[in-house]
Amino acid sequence: MLPKALDELIEALGSLPGVGPRTAERYAYFLLRANERTTDLLSDAISNIHERVRTCPVTYALIDASEDVSPLYSDPERDKTLIAIVEEPLDIIALERTKQFHGTYHVLGGAMSPIDGIGPEQLHIPELIERIKKDAVKEVILATNASVEGESTALYIQKHLEEQGVDISMTRLARGIPVGVDLEYADMITLTHALQGRSKL
Amino acid sequence: MLPKALDELIEALGSLPGVGPRTAERYAYFLLRANERTTDLLSDAISNIHERVRTCPVTYALIDASEDVSPLYSDPERDKTLIAIVEEPLDIIALERTKQFHGTYHVLGGAMSPIDGIGPEQLHIPELIERIKKDAVKEVILATNASVEGESTALYIQKHLEEQGVDISMTRLARGIPVGVDLEYADMITLTHALQGRSKL
Repeated sequence: MLPKALDELIEALGSLPGVGPRTAERYAYFLLRANERTTDLLSDAISNIHERVRTCPVTYALIDASEDVSPLYSDPERDKTLIAIVEEPLDIIALERTKQFHGTYHVLGGAMSPIDGIGPEQLHIPELIERIKKDAVKEVILATNASVEGESTALYIQKHLEEQGVDISMTRLARGIPVGVDLEYADMITLTHALQGRSKL
Repeated sequence: MLPKALDELIEALGSLPGVGPRTAERYAYFLLRANERTTDLLSDAISNIHERVRTCPVTYALIDASEDVSPLYSDPERDKTLIAIVEEPLDIIALERTKQFHGTYHVLGGAMSPIDGIGPEQLHIPELIERIKKDAVKEVILATNASVEGESTALYIQKHLEEQGVDISMTRLARGIPVGVDLEYADMITLTHALQGRSKL
């Protein structure tokens, strides 16, 4: 029914996460009507992504292929004795946006999830321990997601570091009511955390 | 904060309709982790789309660049004396999926919208009149969208054809309650149409 090239484009766009047939059709039709500059920019950006981006061998953040190590690590202004441990590279952006964190990052590369066959051995935990020793780290912030997987990964790392005799300060992000949310809409568990973690005025 | 190539990819993906920064980040990160086959397929599909797809000079449907005219027109099985007039090429897919229509199509290329500066002169209306005469068309189905723009475009075409002395049957798609929808959720205007268009049992 459709030209073959358009069918192929719709199918290829359908491989993107959360994109169903209708959304893929909409994107494809947009691209068909867009000027060549728009399609060339997108096409080139996609085809170059693998060769132009690599993983930092120290922090496992994403870096330019031309860089040796993440600028968020090599920058002398960043405190190397403070590490925020995150699940995925994009979590770094969220934390950087706050402009409140001046330590360094360590990307685990996911969270433990027995259902998906991801155990601690798939995560960059040995490299974390090495870094803690090498950089004389004083504090790690376990900034994993507030999901079951994120929480159990944080718990595992905490126990594992203790077992390995790593004696440093371990913290985690505060759990509580998100800014702008009404009390009546906060779920029970969040509200429990908010009560337990209440602060003095 | 992010590698330049990833930033560029996120920006390029953000040009897709309805894709905000977060969705673009999600797509970009997916593509970064996808294998090269996936990214090559998508990148090639996008870069080829303009040269491999063209517009049918008769029906204004989308066709393969190698075809002269839409197969939905050239097919001798299709009734050329019956034309469904639609706004956009993708509307054809929706109608074809029903497998109930064996006429041909005419794509207007949009709907009249004074706000967007789209008047009747931007639509393929003269070409429609030409076709009606050439193919001795007996009926046109005004299958524009059930929006204000779609309805006024249909009304304009109806009046215009009458003014031009085109004396053929003009119909439009039934307005009524969509299948699977409860009466209590149907809006007032739809329900009014459904009442007016009620059919005998």
